[in-house]
Amino acid sequence: MKLATLKDGTRDGRLIVVKRDNTAYALATNVALTLQAALDDWETKEPQLRALDAQLEAGTVQSRPLDVSALHAPLPRAYEWVDGSAYLNHVILVRKARGAEPPETLKTDPLVYQGGSGDFLAPTADIPLADEAWGLDFEGEVCAILGDTPQGTKAENAAPHVKLLMLANDVSLRNLIPNELAKGFGFFQSKPATAFSPFAVTPDELGAAWHDGRIHLRLRSVLNGQQVGDTDAGPEMHFSFFDLIQHLCKTRSYTAGTILGSGTVSNADRERGISCLAERRMIETIEQGAPKTPFMKPGDTIDIEMTDAEGRSVFGRISQKVVKVP
Amino acid sequence: MKLATLKDGTRDGRLIVVKRDNTAYALATNVALTLQAALDDWETKEPQLRALDAQLEAGTVQSRPLDVSALHAPLPRAYEWVDGSAYLNHVILVRKARGAEPPETLKTDPLVYQGGSGDFLAPTADIPLADEAWGLDFEGEVCAILGDTPQGTKAENAAPHVKLLMLANDVSLRNLIPNELAKGFGFFQSKPATAFSPFAVTPDELGAAWHDGRIHLRLRSVLNGQQVGDTDAGPEMHFSFFDLIQHLCKTRSYTAGTILGSGTVSNADRERGISCLAERRMIETIEQGAPKTPFMKPGDTIDIEMTDAEGRSVFGRISQKVVKVP
Repeated sequence: MKLATLKDGTRDGRLIVVKRDNTAYALATNVALTLQAALDDWETKEPQLRALDAQLEAGTVQSRPLDVSALHAPLPRAYEWVDGSAYLNHVILVRKARGAEPPETLKTDPLVYQGGSGDFLAPTADIPLADEAWGLDFEGEVCAILGDTPQGTKAENAAPHVKLLMLANDVSLRNLIPNELAKGFGFFQSKPATAFSPFAVTPDELGAAWHDGRIHLRLRSVLNGQQVGDTDAGPEMHFSFFDLIQHLCKTRSYTAGTILGSGTVSNADRERGISCLAERRMIETIEQGAPKTPFMKPGDTIDIEMTDAEGRSVFGRISQKVVKVP
Repeated sequence: MKLATLKDGTRDGRLIVVKRDNTAYALATNVALTLQAALDDWETKEPQLRALDAQLEAGTVQSRPLDVSALHAPLPRAYEWVDGSAYLNHVILVRKARGAEPPETLKTDPLVYQGGSGDFLAPTADIPLADEAWGLDFEGEVCAILGDTPQGTKAENAAPHVKLLMLANDVSLRNLIPNELAKGFGFFQSKPATAFSPFAVTPDELGAAWHDGRIHLRLRSVLNGQQVGDTDAGPEMHFSFFDLIQHLCKTRSYTAGTILGSGTVSNADRERGISCLAERRMIETIEQGAPKTPFMKPGDTIDIEMTDAEGRSVFGRISQKVVKVP
């Protein structure tokens, strides 16, 4: 089942169910007005949404053609956005880029940060940039939307808490990071609003590609019309979503609708390309002595998408342009 | 005007208006079901809530006796919880306690971290603690609840974005902090669920005590029945709420209902006592060579309250007990 949120001028939009082939949708507001409302009462709402989805596939309910530009993020705002950094190749390259060592506990203790969650970008929203010197970068990620998840949840019991999966563009301002991290309180200004994919889908929609708490599909990143990455989101996710959930739940509980990100999808095989520019710049530094690729500037575009074995876009396409703001 | 949230078994509770003397309340659900709903439409809802408040004070609307234990946090969950560290005395003492230097930009660049906001504690809720070795500490703070606040908001234009004020107990797990900060991504497991005061009040309720983006009143902390702090929240808040808002808004916007904390209220004058145990332990280390005061353990209680010039409790009392959980 694929869910999405139609912009309607309200803060949280209107919940829709999207046809498997991404061409049409049915309003789900008879079941729940918003995706958050559905997640708040998932035990009741999920079967009702699945029934509507079955009607949509069967053509027995009114549907309308889908226009992705009319969609907001599945959750236009969320109660938490917790982002991991589970692909170790990314951690190693990005730390090298800023002259920092990977943490000693790299392989045993997940890295996560708490992101801002009150004002997300739609999948086709412009990325506002006030100052080019901030070093705007995209970061292609996979995400889980959690149901209620209590303190103490262990990895082996985490699977039922993953209700939906989607993609993120975790926009980063690379040149603000070093000074911010030097202060010791983690990222803040260096992480502006994140964008999410058009659709949030139930894990069963991915079939065998969802297993072990990882999405075993390729994430494609296209910068200014040129493919720059075709990374495998599966095996190199060192900490699975289940591992990350165990880490999150050590000292507190999470409300339904919490978004958990994987961190930038990254492969050691350089043929696979990159899901963020910081990695390419580091590779250039290693190979050529200095970064050649600039960070993003107004007018640049980034598309992020994941296709399944049949070439079908699973989550729809994040497709954004950087725009100068005052 | 004082607002609060009555527990009713739902996730977000029911909005009430509280009488100025804290003895009674009127249901505000005819105006807005929840505080978040009121904040989402504040221009319309605020005057309606003020009209109800006037009726409550005049005794012309049905009221009920107030039982603080029936209250949830004003926002039982919020879209963002951003916590500053604006009292420099606290930053200096706590960094000294963990052998770290204050950042070079201590006086010019505010420290803020993004906190978990999906599952807050009620003002009289037990503080769950799974492991005493984590070093549980309280932190008495003052907070602002923001309305919609756009990217680029400057300190001089920030005042209208502060809709409500309240107190927080920003519970911290001190012994988890050093390893977590060493990883470079800021606090996460070391910041479990935060508790908030019973009432969130409009700034005008404080009269002259609210000026320059600071609350010029004393914050009293009572540990196991003994007063340990009577700190002045005013002049030593180096960065005002307005300064913090400017810092937050450099690279993104905030939705209504975002909570902004001051950080632990702390005074250089040791006669004023402390609003967290980490400070007392550091003072003991300086004066006696080692910390004497243990962190909190199951059975310990902490009360946090702020009274005005007439001795009236402005925000109601945070009153919590630490309880062992599996």
